[in-house]
Amino acid sequence: MSDNTSKFSKIKQFYFNLFPGLQEKNWSNFESKLAVREFRKHEKMLQPGEVCNAICFINKGIIRSYYDIDGKEVITNFYTEEASFCNYESFLSRKPSLFFADALEHTEVVQIDYDALQYIYTYLPDSERVGRLMAEQLYISLSGRVAALLLDSPEQRYQKFLKEKSSFIQRIPQYMIASYLGITPEALSRIRARISKRNNEEAAEEMQKNKAL
Amino acid sequence: MSDNTSKFSKIKQFYFNLFPGLQEKNWSNFESKLAVREFRKHEKMLQPGEVCNAICFINKGIIRSYYDIDGKEVITNFYTEEASFCNYESFLSRKPSLFFADALEHTEVVQIDYDALQYIYTYLPDSERVGRLMAEQLYISLSGRVAALLLDSPEQRYQKFLKEKSSFIQRIPQYMIASYLGITPEALSRIRARISKRNNEEAAEEMQKNKAL
Repeated sequence: MSDNTSKFSKIKQFYFNLFPGLQEKNWSNFESKLAVREFRKHEKMLQPGEVCNAICFINKGIIRSYYDIDGKEVITNFYTEEASFCNYESFLSRKPSLFFADALEHTEVVQIDYDALQYIYTYLPDSERVGRLMAEQLYISLSGRVAALLLDSPEQRYQKFLKEKSSFIQRIPQYMIASYLGITPEALSRIRARISKRNNEEAAEEMQKNKAL
Repeated sequence: MSDNTSKFSKIKQFYFNLFPGLQEKNWSNFESKLAVREFRKHEKMLQPGEVCNAICFINKGIIRSYYDIDGKEVITNFYTEEASFCNYESFLSRKPSLFFADALEHTEVVQIDYDALQYIYTYLPDSERVGRLMAEQLYISLSGRVAALLLDSPEQRYQKFLKEKSSFIQRIPQYMIASYLGITPEALSRIRARISKRNNEEAAEEMQKNKAL
């Protein structure tokens, strides 16, 4: 039993949910290919020019991905506990990454490298199907994000963000949220003020109604 | 032998290349689920609110996909002979499309509907693997397009477009190419003039060199 067994418990749960037919023997083979890695706050995990060679299942911490566009950081996503971070474009195509990733907090991940994933595709029946469904989900999610950037107002994007990332939004600085939404920090402040004012007015109205009853 | 056999020859070739182990018997079953459809020039093929229910393999013609953003068309792609058009996000998630698609020319496609594809996944060994690789390719291609919009200059995007779509670029109006590149038609004219000037200068230089020899 390796020292890392407890650190593998979340990813094990995740994979047993994904492949209900997974056998302990196969899991042990797979587990032997996993590695635990830790990243200090602000530590770079991926840089342009590097091929992304691992899917990082996050035990704790937050990772962000971003482009550097003429010296300006444009944040494309945040990833946290029990989600995975990977530059799938680079990982799948074996081409260098075009973006950065770094840890916003001290972060612990379990890494599945490219070869370990090929192992799972080769030896686990049904894994190809799960692989297809996962790739399709990635595509759907990226398409949704592109459509939102084109079609939704900044306020609609912020409301969606609140819903999707509510569990860890408090751990991300406002200026980074603004960058992710494609707006300035000032525009985000105005949106937050507008939402807050609306919420207060609705609460006051509700109180008036209740008094009148 | 159906009347459509000749119209199925290109898609048959495409699938036999994709699945080298495909048997004639399985192909016949699959083929019986295909349908030929024709679209007039400018005819809408998909609209926001409709679920995309088919992958359209293009025998001839050009299809474009675009968003309507406050009355302005924003073109996201062009599709032509021996490629497939599909709103995969809608097709895979079974949710309504957010964008339009129409035929830029009289267009003939062979349609594979959602159920026919499920048939192929169920009865053809290896099809899950091909399905996974295809979904991964879709993801890589969409990521590349998003990165290009963020990182490349309009001129770089135009040069890529020339390379990728060289076989049918003459069939697309300039203002649509501008829309696809995310620039105004005037900006595209300036880019084309710049490239043409550069090419002429290079040709003249080359001639001078040859004379000097």
